[in-house]
Amino acid sequence: MNKKAIQDLYPEDYSHCYGCGRLNENGLQIKTCWNGKEGITTFIPDKDQMSMPGFAYGGLIASVIDCSGTATAVAAAYKKEGREPGSEPVIRYVTASLHVDYIRPTPVDCPMELISRVKEISDKRIIISTELSSGGKICAKGEVTAAKIPSSMKQMT
Amino acid sequence: MNKKAIQDLYPEDYSHCYGCGRLNENGLQIKTCWNGKEGITTFIPDKDQMSMPGFAYGGLIASVIDCSGTATAVAAAYKKEGREPGSEPVIRYVTASLHVDYIRPTPVDCPMELISRVKEISDKRIIISTELSSGGKICAKGEVTAAKIPSSMKQMT
Repeated sequence: MNKKAIQDLYPEDYSHCYGCGRLNENGLQIKTCWNGKEGITTFIPDKDQMSMPGFAYGGLIASVIDCSGTATAVAAAYKKEGREPGSEPVIRYVTASLHVDYIRPTPVDCPMELISRVKEISDKRIIISTELSSGGKICAKGEVTAAKIPSSMKQMT
Repeated sequence: MNKKAIQDLYPEDYSHCYGCGRLNENGLQIKTCWNGKEGITTFIPDKDQMSMPGFAYGGLIASVIDCSGTATAVAAAYKKEGREPGSEPVIRYVTASLHVDYIRPTPVDCPMELISRVKEISDKRIIISTELSSGGKICAKGEVTAAKIPSSMKQMT
């Protein structure tokens, strides 16, 4: 397992994401590590990130699945090219679609453990499936379809 | 159009959501108004809630679609019973699944305008479709499947 999170290997221009950017001081700082075939994310919600007292809110769960999924897509794209994540030229994917099934309430005071796996990979898009567990129970399942970053976003950086 | 947001009519126990709870001081305070057939939400992102400089991050878009969708489901459920939102006995729905298609980058410095409409309604579940626009352009489309709040969550309040 790489010690450095996939998100911490993004170039500076792509490191401002509220979900996972290392340069966004107010953000969630979601970190995903790549073990060569899966993205592994651990995230501990703040107490106020609740839906109801004691349970994490759905938007946070969607955010963690989103950033874990895109990071895993990036790592998988590097692997497909036989390169290490973070090497030049930079590969960056964004979310084209996100789906989350909320299976059971997710406790807010426990670490969320996410495993993200490649379901489909092509030059244009990568589909990543993610399982989110807490206390050993699967609480949510998600799917991210990641697409290469569009030129309309590149122009802004 | 009701002047009071649907979320501001939730009873106190259900008003701590980070996305839309009036009692969550650190939360997003998403507000959805009901015009009798649609839920209308306007939300202005903070500058740091970005994916990349200038654009809102996907988790925020998912959060706003989620809270608009569940609020609209609640209002539609009251309507189905011929009652005003907020009247007793309380009706509360939670998100069973969430889907978001990101159509184009959403500016971070403009109001997001969301229209949520009932796609399907039954006693067990309500499906709400939402269009998110910014500057007159549709930037994302979402679908929330809302289910009556499970007893495992009720016990905690």
